[in-house]
Amino acid sequence: MNTSIIEMKPIGIIHTPFTSIENMPIQPMAAKEILGTIEIFPEYAEGLLDLEEFSHITLLYHFHKIDGFQLKVKPFMDTVEHGIFATKSPKRPNAIGLSTVELLSVEKNVIHIKMIDVLDGTPLLDIKPFFARFDNREDTKAGWLDRQINLKVDSLRSDDRFK
Amino acid sequence: MNTSIIEMKPIGIIHTPFTSIENMPIQPMAAKEILGTIEIFPEYAEGLLDLEEFSHITLLYHFHKIDGFQLKVKPFMDTVEHGIFATKSPKRPNAIGLSTVELLSVEKNVIHIKMIDVLDGTPLLDIKPFFARFDNREDTKAGWLDRQINLKVDSLRSDDRFK
Repeated sequence: MNTSIIEMKPIGIIHTPFTSIENMPIQPMAAKEILGTIEIFPEYAEGLLDLEEFSHITLLYHFHKIDGFQLKVKPFMDTVEHGIFATKSPKRPNAIGLSTVELLSVEKNVIHIKMIDVLDGTPLLDIKPFFARFDNREDTKAGWLDRQINLKVDSLRSDDRFK
Repeated sequence: MNTSIIEMKPIGIIHTPFTSIENMPIQPMAAKEILGTIEIFPEYAEGLLDLEEFSHITLLYHFHKIDGFQLKVKPFMDTVEHGIFATKSPKRPNAIGLSTVELLSVEKNVIHIKMIDVLDGTPLLDIKPFFARFDNREDTKAGWLDRQINLKVDSLRSDDRFK
């Protein structure tokens, strides 16, 4: 039964140099040197205790500039269509984005980060501490992504297809 | 400004052997041999195209049995409190869970998975394809988790503290 609605409230805002949905790095791996800050709303700041001991954190956020969704998309990294769930394209049924970024420091309710690939003003939903022993996966297969072995990730940028 | 509400709708239901919140594996790494299925609601099934070529997928889901949140928690893997965002404990401001599981096969709108650590009946919000080249992180530091080096992950189970 697909009737239940789940309500989420942003816990903060991600600030980055990217003010337009075009020409952005499409993955953290393509944004290695990009600096950003996360402003956690003061009422949640206590939840940051001990976070600064982690070198990497996974951010869950809302693709707030995306309207509606498509079940099949031509992602930035390919020229043919795939099911939306076989891609990380933003036009998803629940517009949740996921990026694992580098944590530089935490000052009160502000987190300084690097390797961030999201639009300025993005509403943050959650932070998970990254623990390589639990979160890395080895011996993986990645279908169409594996076949794009010659792509130049560092220089890949978005265009306006999901505007 | 923390006023906006973001509405999510489940795209499917995760079926697992775990019918009680107690005595569950606390991470996919502690659930290596656990089998489950995901029933994607038919209206989203088209979005699964090409997903079966991936060996691992990241599930985002709703901790539907969790009420409210705590900003500081004593997680299953430690005996002292940490900020909620420095843990993966379920009692979070937005009760979103994240698990990267093994994909075995896809049959129409049903996905067979292994290494699943969630409660039976968990509402699924999103699926991201796992791509090791983008999603693994090396040379990481993980604070209090690193200090738990002697823990026996495979045998770690939940208790009723987040009931």
